[in-house]
Amino acid sequence: MNTSNTIAFLGPEGTFTQVAALNYFNGKGDLKACATIDDVFALVEQEVTAYGIAPIENSTEGAVNNTQDCLIDSMVNIVGEVVVTVEHHLLASSSDSANVLVKIASHKQSLAQCRKWLLKNYPHLELLECASNAEAAKLAATNINIGAIAGTLAEKTYGLVPIARKIQDQSHNSTRFLVLANKETQPTGNDKTSVLIYAENKPGSLFRILEPFEKLQISLTKIETRPSKSEAWAYVFFIDFEGHLKDKLIQELFIRLKKCTAELKILGSYPAFEI
Amino acid sequence: MNTSNTIAFLGPEGTFTQVAALNYFNGKGDLKACATIDDVFALVEQEVTAYGIAPIENSTEGAVNNTQDCLIDSMVNIVGEVVVTVEHHLLASSSDSANVLVKIASHKQSLAQCRKWLLKNYPHLELLECASNAEAAKLAATNINIGAIAGTLAEKTYGLVPIARKIQDQSHNSTRFLVLANKETQPTGNDKTSVLIYAENKPGSLFRILEPFEKLQISLTKIETRPSKSEAWAYVFFIDFEGHLKDKLIQELFIRLKKCTAELKILGSYPAFEI
Repeated sequence: MNTSNTIAFLGPEGTFTQVAALNYFNGKGDLKACATIDDVFALVEQEVTAYGIAPIENSTEGAVNNTQDCLIDSMVNIVGEVVVTVEHHLLASSSDSANVLVKIASHKQSLAQCRKWLLKNYPHLELLECASNAEAAKLAATNINIGAIAGTLAEKTYGLVPIARKIQDQSHNSTRFLVLANKETQPTGNDKTSVLIYAENKPGSLFRILEPFEKLQISLTKIETRPSKSEAWAYVFFIDFEGHLKDKLIQELFIRLKKCTAELKILGSYPAFEI
Repeated sequence: MNTSNTIAFLGPEGTFTQVAALNYFNGKGDLKACATIDDVFALVEQEVTAYGIAPIENSTEGAVNNTQDCLIDSMVNIVGEVVVTVEHHLLASSSDSANVLVKIASHKQSLAQCRKWLLKNYPHLELLECASNAEAAKLAATNINIGAIAGTLAEKTYGLVPIARKIQDQSHNSTRFLVLANKETQPTGNDKTSVLIYAENKPGSLFRILEPFEKLQISLTKIETRPSKSEAWAYVFFIDFEGHLKDKLIQELFIRLKKCTAELKILGSYPAFEI
């Protein structure tokens, strides 16, 4: 089987991850919907698909913890990133549904992104957490008592009608997705690199990690902490910065970082997303 | 009304937040259950209760975003912290329930803390996100088809039976809670201070924020990023460190920090939790 143009994405049909895949690959490629983020990573790792796409961060709600945890465990590389503007709508199977809603279903990140709007407009409805907002849209399509928070692609995919449009709490709501593969990229001159760092358990360890970046004048674009799975109240740092791991400057950075970190894992270098 | 010994907590009866309140105040005080974390902050801010307790961080799942967002917006102070060991059980209204479960209900953090166990043992059950794990326990008490993930206090409060005990993915699972009040504390000699920093939007800004900590030899105990609500892809930093805001050293720190931050908000100084 030729898998060179296959792309695993967090499904089902109609998710924002599918929108990200369509945008990144210009509508080309053979898309394969996965039930979980773990499955996206597994398909790429086992070379069932050439690429995988998973959400990593939303501009309102912050990091997607599940994807961060997969990056900790998996051996796949990040080979690209893509940012998608996220507009959420409250969708239902028919316009009559508005008065008989009992539950509102969506992915937990989408529920969080619309938290204030939900508290104001539907404070008494039960919130139903689904694996994705497209899954929620699928549910709403067959049950008049369930509304779904999802985007335009899900609305069209499942033939839903909008009860309210653009209900996300922040108007500038967008999500960044990672493109995953079992390979490395070549430098393009406008690249980013992502690493995962286990700090030494000593005072000032984060400062010492940041010192080489400052000395070498390398721009950090992101720093994020996550609990270490091996020890309570220990943390790992996800750091994104400008440059490619094949650049001399970045190789010098790694030499310096290795001296002041307990463990360093390179997640990948990839072209920075440009609007 | 005398409110001096009233404590708002994230309810209903039986939550780990109630366990935290009972531990911190040695079983004393008049506890008032709130429906949301926002309500806990509001009651303290409006001086309806003297204290409030809300979860801030779990050792497996990381920050409680909702509490972080309340800290950004609210004027209440952090006056204490307390750590509670969190053991989750799968609970139901009777032992017959195990074979007829259709849904598993809990708070999204608790569902996340048991994600691997759920995927292994109940991959096909619907997950129902509730405002708290005690709310989920309440639901399970009246519906044989619903299981709840909650702790021992909720089990006793709602008369449930355990289907499986200690199902959290990490054995060292604990949650840190903040004690909130409209007042400041006095130094005890073993204090922590929490601040919120809006970094300048320039390369190296995080390094410059950490520099005064390093120069003054002040130990950071925690750093966490959160999206800024005012701008997409801008971040605020939550930083905890050793010392009290009335210490001379910490006052010197603030003088230096103000020179290299866009905005600095002091969230409070409080005695560090000791096991």
